[in-house]
Amino acid sequence: MKVIELRMTVTSSNDRDAEELRSELKERGIFLVNLMSAPGSGKTTLLSRTITDLSGRAEIGVMEADIASDVDALRIAELGARSIQVHTDGMCHMDAGMTRAGLIEMEGERGIVFLENVGNLICPAEFDTGAHKNVMILSVPEGDDKPLKYPLMFRKSDALVITKTDAAPYFDFDTEAVKRRALALNPEIRIFPVSAKTGEGMEEWESWLLSEWEEWRNA
Amino acid sequence: MKVIELRMTVTSSNDRDAEELRSELKERGIFLVNLMSAPGSGKTTLLSRTITDLSGRAEIGVMEADIASDVDALRIAELGARSIQVHTDGMCHMDAGMTRAGLIEMEGERGIVFLENVGNLICPAEFDTGAHKNVMILSVPEGDDKPLKYPLMFRKSDALVITKTDAAPYFDFDTEAVKRRALALNPEIRIFPVSAKTGEGMEEWESWLLSEWEEWRNA
Repeated sequence: MKVIELRMTVTSSNDRDAEELRSELKERGIFLVNLMSAPGSGKTTLLSRTITDLSGRAEIGVMEADIASDVDALRIAELGARSIQVHTDGMCHMDAGMTRAGLIEMEGERGIVFLENVGNLICPAEFDTGAHKNVMILSVPEGDDKPLKYPLMFRKSDALVITKTDAAPYFDFDTEAVKRRALALNPEIRIFPVSAKTGEGMEEWESWLLSEWEEWRNA
Repeated sequence: MKVIELRMTVTSSNDRDAEELRSELKERGIFLVNLMSAPGSGKTTLLSRTITDLSGRAEIGVMEADIASDVDALRIAELGARSIQVHTDGMCHMDAGMTRAGLIEMEGERGIVFLENVGNLICPAEFDTGAHKNVMILSVPEGDDKPLKYPLMFRKSDALVITKTDAAPYFDFDTEAVKRRALALNPEIRIFPVSAKTGEGMEEWESWLLSEWEEWRNA
């Protein structure tokens, strides 16, 4: 497990860098999935369960992006999955240049690579990382008003995974309201309510992931 | 209830602006408390309960800062408290100039004013808003590893309120570990575990607030 210290990429052309990175990754055989969420939404737990469930069906690598610490990368490495940790030097998001710098360290990697972006519902939505798919995670305890408060994140995401659904009886959380609000912002968004604890809903999310990966490979 | 659209203050002197604002507020009799947290940590619920509990003992006003929406300001206004909503034009934090622009709209306000900062554990820690006290909120479902991942926020806060403690039996959350980690980053930080639902711990938090307000008035 590596720890890489990143500095913000000073570039006025992040969108072009992101497009270039997407082509580069196609050649390397890496399908990059950008996971975005607030702190504490359960990104790492969702990833751990997904890696375990898809063992034998997909090669999965993980790039953990954090301001500080390597607790997430250590959790992933314990599963035997290839993981690297990047530190963003205080930056609140990853951009394409930073993502590319991290991926250079994952030599020989193929298959699905998850970028676990910095825990933040705002800034990561503004920067294209070069990922092929953007996935947003919203956990039940955060509340069903989040599409109203962080609309850009919902607009930029291909899929929304609603996590910790097992805690729903404990919180006032209206899943139908979230679906309605998310779809109003982004009619194309796919929505997967899951519990990584009980396994409920995991299959639908994992099937979507595998089919998007296959479609990309055959494109 | 007002909604104000803000643009980022372009200033290289935020720290000086913040100091000036603090003096200005002293003359106006406003004790400004900056509340920072991740999205969905229960800031507005904590505020609602605090306003109700302190009714008759303190005049309380609220400035809600969000990228979009006014759901929080509406909730506060329903309690009969004076509230305004500021929109940050996509910005992920409030700075001193933005805070000042909002406070100008709260003419005649005195007593305690809460600034409910944008839901984000990263950027708000980097900008002095001109507040007299900085309070960070961490909710139990977010997890006990947050001091490791967002150290600056813990360093900059005078108090840490741990919310949703009633949900503790449902989540793996080690309160003692959070206390130890927070105090390692900031030995001066005051820590208040509370449940705004059951009321547990609210009195300690409210007593601290009142005594800090009194100390400031007499300084």
